[in-house]
Amino acid sequence: MINKLLIVGCGLIGSSILKKVCKKKIAKKILVFEKSKKNQRILKRLKLKFQLIKKMDKKISECDFIIICTPLSEYKKIFLACNKYSKKNILITDVGSAKRDSITKINRIKRKDINWISSHPIAGSEVSGPLNGNQNLFVNKWSVIIKQKKSQTKEMKKILKFWKLLGSKTVTMDADEHDKIFAITSHLPHLIAYNLILTATNFKISNKDKVLKFSAGGLRDFSRIAASNEIMWRDIFFNNKSNMLKVIDLFIKNLKVFKRDIKSNKKNLGTKLRNLKKVRQKIVLLKQDTSKPDFGRT
Amino acid sequence: MINKLLIVGCGLIGSSILKKVCKKKIAKKILVFEKSKKNQRILKRLKLKFQLIKKMDKKISECDFIIICTPLSEYKKIFLACNKYSKKNILITDVGSAKRDSITKINRIKRKDINWISSHPIAGSEVSGPLNGNQNLFVNKWSVIIKQKKSQTKEMKKILKFWKLLGSKTVTMDADEHDKIFAITSHLPHLIAYNLILTATNFKISNKDKVLKFSAGGLRDFSRIAASNEIMWRDIFFNNKSNMLKVIDLFIKNLKVFKRDIKSNKKNLGTKLRNLKKVRQKIVLLKQDTSKPDFGRT
Repeated sequence: MINKLLIVGCGLIGSSILKKVCKKKIAKKILVFEKSKKNQRILKRLKLKFQLIKKMDKKISECDFIIICTPLSEYKKIFLACNKYSKKNILITDVGSAKRDSITKINRIKRKDINWISSHPIAGSEVSGPLNGNQNLFVNKWSVIIKQKKSQTKEMKKILKFWKLLGSKTVTMDADEHDKIFAITSHLPHLIAYNLILTATNFKISNKDKVLKFSAGGLRDFSRIAASNEIMWRDIFFNNKSNMLKVIDLFIKNLKVFKRDIKSNKKNLGTKLRNLKKVRQKIVLLKQDTSKPDFGRT
Repeated sequence: MINKLLIVGCGLIGSSILKKVCKKKIAKKILVFEKSKKNQRILKRLKLKFQLIKKMDKKISECDFIIICTPLSEYKKIFLACNKYSKKNILITDVGSAKRDSITKINRIKRKDINWISSHPIAGSEVSGPLNGNQNLFVNKWSVIIKQKKSQTKEMKKILKFWKLLGSKTVTMDADEHDKIFAITSHLPHLIAYNLILTATNFKISNKDKVLKFSAGGLRDFSRIAASNEIMWRDIFFNNKSNMLKVIDLFIKNLKVFKRDIKSNKKNLGTKLRNLKKVRQKIVLLKQDTSKPDFGRT
């Protein structure tokens, strides 16, 4: 399908793509750009057939498909290199988690003939780097493909096919809708997890060690999400700012009502909690999580 | 060790104790009080050797050890029955998650000769009921035993031994310290999970279905904790009110700082997130969670 593929950034997501593309022979030739020396060393040990490049220069000029797997703050630099070196009508996608602002910014600077159709695979983990890459990371996971006015059907089909080859279920939506949905399903949960860990570390308590020692009662779950890559998440929060500010305000408003309920021993608090409980069953029914109690971890 | 044991309330925790006590023959005779008809039916099918009682009456008068496994709001009724029917110098423990207020309230009404030493096993799950009981629920988990001025060494030793027989590691602390630690490690995380699910359900979005459909990016984790038993958690929030109000305020204060950081594209937000990330490794080192990425669920 692909003649010459370039993967830009080869952390968890990039290396998972690399492994699957090699396994399924989706591209005739693969180039990987990775700037971290540590990751370069790990990639060399993978014994996969690809060419590691340490600069985005004329070596990329033969590529016909580029997938960007870096934090959002790297995109500008990458597109400027693509403007300079990539061939005409190149197809570019990415895996970023926040869309509208980044698309607006990049559309302003990218070469007009570059076809950029943005993607977002709903896959990831608290671990990073190519050592943790997994060829099955995308299997049965959703990949969202962003519709833009200028998205040509032909190019859109190619992107959809690419994600399906990696094992994903695909869905299209526009950037505004995407950013709204993921503000509430992913970006706010991550911020809340970081904030809970922060609150646990700055809560005044005589024996701080005991907080982590007895974290199995709930805190440990949040620590997993709060162990996610900090640059990626900083960039997501900044690039979905308007939705983030809205969902934070709503979260605080709701939390203040809970505070009042607790303060006044509100009689129907049990009913309120019981209604919220039902959401879990729906998520499990939609196959978005395991049905095993405690995630099956014990 | 125990002559005649009474388990009051036989949901997830009570039935897990029942199964282990039967398996390890920790008591010569076991009585189980369970008021839910559904749970009574399930218990009868368990094929374990115990006597099911449907009333706390003179049938309990021969018991020498009682363990209360009900929501905190049931305690008063249970102790009034114990006052009336239990034999002299009976030893009672419980498994409640909030201590100071409930101990104060019960000490006011309980018969003076009743030895009550409160416990809190750090074990549980989002599933409830005797169908989900598991004899290994307490193995290698912490059980906290509450020290009171009047806790007699002899009785305290019995309680510690009981939890060790169930497989727990034991630790003692006073009620104030307990409630402070678990406000931040367990009670706040549960409230925050409920509040996040509430926020996801009342966030204005055109296609509500998509929120749960794409919940794998973070929200699903919170839905597990927010699926916990509503009566148990309502009672915990009410019975650890003073600490809850404090940790909620601190959480909101910290979240407002995060909001400012995001609003202003604060440069060092990445550093702040990186520092919070380290907590996960400590929790895993303390063996309070699995080291497998994504809890090993995929």
